[in-house]
Amino acid sequence: MRKVSIIGVGTSAFGKLQPGIIEIAVEACEKAIADAGIEKKSIKTFYLGNYAGEVLTGQALLAAMVARGLGLGVIPVTKVEGACASGGIALRHGIQAVATGEVDFALVAGVEKMTGVPTPKVTSALAGAVDQNLEGKVGLTFPGFFALAFRRYIHEFAVNEDLIHQVVVKSRGNALNNPICYLRKKTSLEDIKASYPVAEPLRQMDCCPISDGAAAAVICPAEIAKNFHANPVQILASTQTLGYTRLSDLSSLLSFEATVNAAKKAYQMAGITPADIDVAEIHDCFSIAEVIDSEDLGFFKKGEGAAAAAGGATSLAGTIPINPSGGLISRGHPVGATGLAQVYEIVKQLRGDAVNQVPNARTGLAHNLGGPGSTCTVTILRQQD
Amino acid sequence: MRKVSIIGVGTSAFGKLQPGIIEIAVEACEKAIADAGIEKKSIKTFYLGNYAGEVLTGQALLAAMVARGLGLGVIPVTKVEGACASGGIALRHGIQAVATGEVDFALVAGVEKMTGVPTPKVTSALAGAVDQNLEGKVGLTFPGFFALAFRRYIHEFAVNEDLIHQVVVKSRGNALNNPICYLRKKTSLEDIKASYPVAEPLRQMDCCPISDGAAAAVICPAEIAKNFHANPVQILASTQTLGYTRLSDLSSLLSFEATVNAAKKAYQMAGITPADIDVAEIHDCFSIAEVIDSEDLGFFKKGEGAAAAAGGATSLAGTIPINPSGGLISRGHPVGATGLAQVYEIVKQLRGDAVNQVPNARTGLAHNLGGPGSTCTVTILRQQD
Repeated sequence: MRKVSIIGVGTSAFGKLQPGIIEIAVEACEKAIADAGIEKKSIKTFYLGNYAGEVLTGQALLAAMVARGLGLGVIPVTKVEGACASGGIALRHGIQAVATGEVDFALVAGVEKMTGVPTPKVTSALAGAVDQNLEGKVGLTFPGFFALAFRRYIHEFAVNEDLIHQVVVKSRGNALNNPICYLRKKTSLEDIKASYPVAEPLRQMDCCPISDGAAAAVICPAEIAKNFHANPVQILASTQTLGYTRLSDLSSLLSFEATVNAAKKAYQMAGITPADIDVAEIHDCFSIAEVIDSEDLGFFKKGEGAAAAAGGATSLAGTIPINPSGGLISRGHPVGATGLAQVYEIVKQLRGDAVNQVPNARTGLAHNLGGPGSTCTVTILRQQD
Repeated sequence: MRKVSIIGVGTSAFGKLQPGIIEIAVEACEKAIADAGIEKKSIKTFYLGNYAGEVLTGQALLAAMVARGLGLGVIPVTKVEGACASGGIALRHGIQAVATGEVDFALVAGVEKMTGVPTPKVTSALAGAVDQNLEGKVGLTFPGFFALAFRRYIHEFAVNEDLIHQVVVKSRGNALNNPICYLRKKTSLEDIKASYPVAEPLRQMDCCPISDGAAAAVICPAEIAKNFHANPVQILASTQTLGYTRLSDLSSLLSFEATVNAAKKAYQMAGITPADIDVAEIHDCFSIAEVIDSEDLGFFKKGEGAAAAAGGATSLAGTIPINPSGGLISRGHPVGATGLAQVYEIVKQLRGDAVNQVPNARTGLAHNLGGPGSTCTVTILRQQD
């Protein structure tokens, strides 16, 4: 396997966007290609992460549509789907394609267009990642799933629920000056507790907003990366795992095996420990998700994540800054785009030009989770020497 | 790149099936794994081709759902989509994963569940592979698209339209004794012409039927293939190409560049010519498609495919037997499954135990096409020495 680096990243705006799903994806890709300074004809494979393109916009065959919109050549173009981890899966496939020597330049992107559609339709599309034979039938949705996890967490670890809401205060604070975030409004604990209950104890502001957006990256062999970008970011590890697909199969709601396994393998591949990570973008689809993820990824012991975060450990000045971008909770969660939006932020951090720059950030981690803990990607990145 | 072989194949029945989409896929996979004689824990990556799972059944995250149903381990599982070429794309990804050395054993499958849903919803889902910004809006569907191609073909080459319908007579004849085919009824030219017009000159029997089904294959390095199956089938070439996504961008309706390019590259990789192919399964979503494909793949000169087929060249005893299984036109076209159902038939042919065995078939080709000529996979297979 060859060493691989990211030499270009780009995103669209996130939020309620006017352009269609193809245009949003093309915009992010054009920016990533320009950032990489490569010619389009160099791109020899293209992966697009997308979850519900056809359900929400009527448009299928999206990888080909976006590739034609970009003017790519006669290359393989593939849409991949793994619910909310679709973007991370696209990234991993681009990394593998270059690492194995299949191609020298891969373009990867993720996109979702979710606004302009009645909310019940979006809710129903998102619930499509629940097992329809069993748990979809009885009305399980993701807010319901994470509300159960929230309730279990505060019971099991005797944690005041305010500590969970507090995660949102931190992330919304980070988002204030990040232009790509959908929600850039100062948010207090009181605001969150006053927002309407979605599935108690989850309040509306504990949930990432429905939004549109796209993000993209260009990948090439590390040994030639500096010919294209002064500050390439090297991939130390990229993993993708299968976990449980049913709530009823989980032995605990307090940990997701897909994350634990993806992280363990990634740290091993990178030859580092969680303590070596300087900055992380993790899958905070709900406030409680960030807490569980932060423990599953090894940043805190099980049951200690909420208190640690409330104590400032995950803030920009903390021991492990988490979601300096504002996270899904502020940026929005255009499902297919999220995995690549996270990597966009980590690349910016490791280049040293992030909006909320973490001082001396040298090694970063991105964590993307799909379904009820069903599929996970973890990517570890480092400033290329 | 390592040499790669198929050591196991399996399918569900095709047609109107009682079980759900996950169960159908699991059935085909279980059969392929049993055929390969490997343990499930050997499988280190899983690709599932599926087009409209969420739109038609409400079930997303299908790769994980099927993988859990099978009891696979903590491995990467990925759904890929490229409209009607989704199955071929899954196959190619399994081949690449083994060829590049990423894994030793890959499981690939394709599935679709299309019946039990109102036909207009299915038609609309299929039309999702048309560019919705431009041509979807004005009502273009795939029957409409191929009707235009049919009309252009008979005009351009002064061919009697009966020669196009005749392709169906041949394929339906092949299907008569193939138990996995959905439509196994002797069909005459008169039957076809008497069937209702879908989009003239296409009659109902010129169109593949809406159906359910799944197919799967197990792939491993050629050098160890004989440890698992007495008659492994080696992959000589596997290609995937991008073509046009809009009817209005095509310079001609009589040829699909995605096929021409995928075939050209595949013959080159395999070091053979079309004349070396003993049997082919090609993408006959409509009668006219088989004719155009047979020319694009180099079996006949442009404009001569219809007459050659009518003269028997593509029959079981012909110079290049095409769709000995009965093709999409008889087996049905559960979109995501088709690319792997084709490979199932070619593997059976090259093992010498096909239902309609082509004598001395040593080298075979499978051709899967998605969208309005937008994405294509070509796979060339040979009896392993």
